[in-house]
Amino acid sequence: MKLLEQTVERIEPQDQAARAKAKARLDQLVMPHWALGRLMDLALDLAGMTGTARPAVARKAILVMAGDHGVCAEGVSKFPPQVTTQMVHGFVAGIAGINVLARLNDVRVVAVDMGVAGDLSALADAGKILSRKVAFGTKNMAQGPAMSREQARQAVEAGIDVVNQLAGDIDVFGTGDMGIGNTTPSTAIITALTGRPVAELIGRGTGIDDEQLTRKISVIQRSLQVNQPDPRDGLDVLSKVGGFEIGGLAGVILGAAALRKPVVVDGFISTAAALIAHALCPHCADYIIAAHRSVEVGHAVMHQFLGKQPLLDLNLRLGEGTGAALAMNLVEAAQRILTEMATFEEAAVSQAH
Amino acid sequence: MKLLEQTVERIEPQDQAARAKAKARLDQLVMPHWALGRLMDLALDLAGMTGTARPAVARKAILVMAGDHGVCAEGVSKFPPQVTTQMVHGFVAGIAGINVLARLNDVRVVAVDMGVAGDLSALADAGKILSRKVAFGTKNMAQGPAMSREQARQAVEAGIDVVNQLAGDIDVFGTGDMGIGNTTPSTAIITALTGRPVAELIGRGTGIDDEQLTRKISVIQRSLQVNQPDPRDGLDVLSKVGGFEIGGLAGVILGAAALRKPVVVDGFISTAAALIAHALCPHCADYIIAAHRSVEVGHAVMHQFLGKQPLLDLNLRLGEGTGAALAMNLVEAAQRILTEMATFEEAAVSQAH
Repeated sequence: MKLLEQTVERIEPQDQAARAKAKARLDQLVMPHWALGRLMDLALDLAGMTGTARPAVARKAILVMAGDHGVCAEGVSKFPPQVTTQMVHGFVAGIAGINVLARLNDVRVVAVDMGVAGDLSALADAGKILSRKVAFGTKNMAQGPAMSREQARQAVEAGIDVVNQLAGDIDVFGTGDMGIGNTTPSTAIITALTGRPVAELIGRGTGIDDEQLTRKISVIQRSLQVNQPDPRDGLDVLSKVGGFEIGGLAGVILGAAALRKPVVVDGFISTAAALIAHALCPHCADYIIAAHRSVEVGHAVMHQFLGKQPLLDLNLRLGEGTGAALAMNLVEAAQRILTEMATFEEAAVSQAH
Repeated sequence: MKLLEQTVERIEPQDQAARAKAKARLDQLVMPHWALGRLMDLALDLAGMTGTARPAVARKAILVMAGDHGVCAEGVSKFPPQVTTQMVHGFVAGIAGINVLARLNDVRVVAVDMGVAGDLSALADAGKILSRKVAFGTKNMAQGPAMSREQARQAVEAGIDVVNQLAGDIDVFGTGDMGIGNTTPSTAIITALTGRPVAELIGRGTGIDDEQLTRKISVIQRSLQVNQPDPRDGLDVLSKVGGFEIGGLAGVILGAAALRKPVVVDGFISTAAALIAHALCPHCADYIIAAHRSVEVGHAVMHQFLGKQPLLDLNLRLGEGTGAALAMNLVEAAQRILTEMATFEEAAVSQAH
């Protein structure tokens, strides 16, 4: 059996006994019942994911996966494609948004070259990034499949493998993306997997104008017509209208779920990766924490599809894992409420009548 | 001139030059324009509040002010009044919700006895809490004024004084409350100051049932009829339908504003205190950061009245400053984006065409 199938086979639903044990404690904490609301819901999830009422969350990493997109030839982004390569250098230098927010919340940033069009071998050789490069960017999905089915598998298995490699040192994973043009394949993925019309899902990505928006919609519709992705087959959707970093992030989500570790899913692109992971194994959603609701309109559609309510709503639309880095603080808050706060009895405080 | 009037006189609008300087840098940061959304809006506010494009926010304190309420005699809360005293002991022991979340985000917790009905002098003598006790609880506002006008002034000036005392060590203040029954005076304050009907504003506080809800509405209506608070006079509203901890927190907000320091305002009770502060000096709102939107329905009405959009929306309804402690992480995030992230030029990344 191959790594993908082995991993999917290991993914189980949340542990109900651990949830019940956590709930018994949370019900007794010294405050009006459930007065810390969604932090407490999240604490239950952490228990269910990890299988213990004392979940560990202190060691945190965000995997920022990068890839380039052949569809940029259609003029779907305001930024030139070389920015993907430049930003990976920025992640290594520690000056990007994700570096700043990850430092604040004591989160390790691991940049992974999944398929950047530039040569990043010097950074990989120096141990500054992980290289799992599938190819130098995808093909133009408006003219045919973005990648082969074997490349799609390779991308997903690379994500699983990176998680397996880091798992001994990391309690909670987060996802991040870098890839100029990648809101276009992400929107195509949502359309393919949810069946909703493109025009309802599409946003302005990094800030395109009306003309560019019309072009983007037309490019996505053409990509779907040319490729006819099969919504029952996650690898088919990924290969035809996806991206290497999107496949890698789908693997990160599956890999974390198989190890019973929470995975904090960032923004629009990361959530499209979660849709691919969900298509490959619906139970993986039990291990997903939705970090935030982005400005991109299709993001709420994806959260609804996955049955997730995001923790934050701050008009973010950067990617890189920035929303996940912020949400990590709430994950730790939830765990500490569960493990550090006293019960009425422990605190000797009178209960409600 | 008295401390309150001196303080109000020192409160100025945000510094537009510092905001402009911060905006010039934020506009150039290495990401799509304003892609970190509300974190960037908050960074502008931090610059405007502190008067510098490099605001300091590392030293954080939440003032948890406690007081008891004579109106509890009307049966408005599920919890017995002695819980206020017990919880102050809990804050000192470090086992309450606010302690847990403050530790996570490196926030100092300062508990202040503003008017608890129990004897907390041993804790005050040991230096574990600050004592600014105005009285052993307010009077029953359903039968007459909760306190005298002089006591209202004393409470507000105590809050200002505590901030002045701590200001040398603290960059950002946060508000927190403890007082069994205090959603009732808070709701009366909103009604008095916004003119909205009680029934539109009222929630179930710590979890009361239908019968208790009807009683709470009736108690608030009676308190307003009996006392006829003057909405143009913040001290009048506070004295007639307020509380000692609410007055203290209004003082904290005014004191922080006068010192050009940001103040992170927590939940329903803290925001009612902000309404009192606003009635005393509308410019103080320029220094308020709204931490979160609580479950209490009147909270959104207050945010609208103050022109504030809260950072978090997590179904919290605990008080104690718990939402402020969580929001402190976002305040630091905003400041770090402004001061640590590189510009396009610094990072040598290609800009959008």
